[in-house]
Amino acid sequence: MILEVADLRIAPGQQAEFEAAMRRGLETVIARARGMKGWKVNRGVESAERYLLMVFWDTLDDHTVHFRGSPLFAEWRAIVGPFFAEPPRVEHFELVAKSS
Amino acid sequence: MILEVADLRIAPGQQAEFEAAMRRGLETVIARARGMKGWKVNRGVESAERYLLMVFWDTLDDHTVHFRGSPLFAEWRAIVGPFFAEPPRVEHFELVAKSS
Repeated sequence: MILEVADLRIAPGQQAEFEAAMRRGLETVIARARGMKGWKVNRGVESAERYLLMVFWDTLDDHTVHFRGSPLFAEWRAIVGPFFAEPPRVEHFELVAKSS
Repeated sequence: MILEVADLRIAPGQQAEFEAAMRRGLETVIARARGMKGWKVNRGVESAERYLLMVFWDTLDDHTVHFRGSPLFAEWRAIVGPFFAEPPRVEHFELVAKSS
């Protein structure tokens, strides 16, 4: 399992519209992606325009090769891209340990 | 519920020692903090010296006031602080939405 973390900054005052767009994009586009196991959207407390989108994938390739190389990527970016105040910073992570 | 995300960079080649120290600090110090509900440690795929420590707290104050103002904070930093290659970047987040 791979965790994608997308660190997003949006324009001020657009939280409600962005959150609705994110939910729509996740439920109608990301939900159809191969190997997509689940997602969470987190809004910043200190930085009200900052969001962390976390998406769980079976493998790294499911995101970086299959999703980004599919028509779904353009569909997704058409929905959420207009809100981005700067290019998303995206990296992937592997779970090392968690509390029981 | 509040999610603390600590974005950590360690010195190269110290992953195994750092991960053992993190686990010890989390299980022996963070586990005793008021309002601490759980944690995850994630290691970067693209950035092998990058870690995201995620800690779930009942309230923001449980982390920023009670934990940081308690003797536990110094205990924790004594265990994990020596590995940090730069000051941790810590912010807090609220869950907006998640997949069902």
